[in-house]
Amino acid sequence: MAQNIYDDPDFFAGYAQLPRSIDGLDAAPEWPTLRRMLPSIGGADVVDLGCGYGWFCRWAADRSPRSVTGFDVSERMLDRAASDPAHHESIDYVLADLDSIELPTSSADLVYSSLALHYVVDVERLVEQIAGALRPGGSLVFSVEHPIRTAPITPHFDTDPAGERSWALGSYAVEGPRTLDWIAPGVVKQHRMVASYLTALIAGGLRIRAVEEWHPSEEQLIDHPEWIDHMHRPNFLLVAADRV
Amino acid sequence: MAQNIYDDPDFFAGYAQLPRSIDGLDAAPEWPTLRRMLPSIGGADVVDLGCGYGWFCRWAADRSPRSVTGFDVSERMLDRAASDPAHHESIDYVLADLDSIELPTSSADLVYSSLALHYVVDVERLVEQIAGALRPGGSLVFSVEHPIRTAPITPHFDTDPAGERSWALGSYAVEGPRTLDWIAPGVVKQHRMVASYLTALIAGGLRIRAVEEWHPSEEQLIDHPEWIDHMHRPNFLLVAADRV
Repeated sequence: MAQNIYDDPDFFAGYAQLPRSIDGLDAAPEWPTLRRMLPSIGGADVVDLGCGYGWFCRWAADRSPRSVTGFDVSERMLDRAASDPAHHESIDYVLADLDSIELPTSSADLVYSSLALHYVVDVERLVEQIAGALRPGGSLVFSVEHPIRTAPITPHFDTDPAGERSWALGSYAVEGPRTLDWIAPGVVKQHRMVASYLTALIAGGLRIRAVEEWHPSEEQLIDHPEWIDHMHRPNFLLVAADRV
Repeated sequence: MAQNIYDDPDFFAGYAQLPRSIDGLDAAPEWPTLRRMLPSIGGADVVDLGCGYGWFCRWAADRSPRSVTGFDVSERMLDRAASDPAHHESIDYVLADLDSIELPTSSADLVYSSLALHYVVDVERLVEQIAGALRPGGSLVFSVEHPIRTAPITPHFDTDPAGERSWALGSYAVEGPRTLDWIAPGVVKQHRMVASYLTALIAGGLRIRAVEEWHPSEEQLIDHPEWIDHMHRPNFLLVAADRV
């Protein structure tokens, strides 16, 4: 199973201070791109894998779905989600480890996952579960930390004497766990290549509909000039794939 | 149109010394992977975009195709291909710029391209031509230099004090020409992101069947320990996509 760092009190406290923890989807720079990849929510059975504080579940619940189910490995996260002032009674929150979750066959029209699959050890197994859970015409839409970002053993940017920035990319083709200090020490993420994510989808019988490597738009760079590093190294991989 | 560096005499002379120029497909480390992505050649109309010396055209011609047509922008390359001792009379070699090529509708079962599309300025236009040329069930199978490799303005590896190697990745999200000295000075390649290649295929109506980021196998590393750098930064992107 994947590490559950989110139930670590120090991590949880630090995570709560991230802009996207405080302001939700609107504080996630990749959200406008991910949102454009979503199918219509109206009348749909929606599943969110790694729902965290429930920001996406609440967004979906506002759009007349048939159901919304948010899964997370962290009880603290689910408690926080269920006690949010904007909680909808129509949302079910369920404790589950994405490395052992069992999803009912043909039960979902949209499976969504934001920045969770890079914790999953066996993504092929999970994609099989998702593909089985999707009805024909249904969609998987997800984001992960970009593999270029998760690859290095000691992630960092370098600045050369001329001031040019570069991302010190190493070990891209060496898949497996990466342990780093992010909010708390010893956070374990699973690095895999872009091709491995896509191959898992294809092997699961899904048809790739959209692939985006998120980097800031010119407009976002005006507001956030510090995001220029994401032009050197895209921050997120966003994928939409459909059950045909 | 794309730069035609291959008709530069100095480049052509240097290119002739590359292992894959001398020994063909067997000297291309990505060939076994690319070959596994190919459909059956028997009875097929095969097109090779950027055929160079004609190694792939001859390989295909040995497998009972209906026809093989090799396109290249370089007259020198085509002359060399047509005068090869193993030339088959069944192969047509045609001079064409991949940025302006027009392919007959529904004329091909396989469109193959090895390490040529990273010279093409308008890959969306070319994919439309390819998608129109493919019959239903037909395949596009291609390799390009991996976008991680084409991204930097000044491509290089760094070695840190501990001896750890890294690829100085920069400008990944900044698409466009990259001018570098490779065999001859001033070779211009077109950098685009992995997502942009895939998006062009999807926009052209093709269904992505396989994606590989070539890096050496353990076996290849035993024979070629100097290829270890390709574990840090995959060398080639290989894609298969089908007309449905």
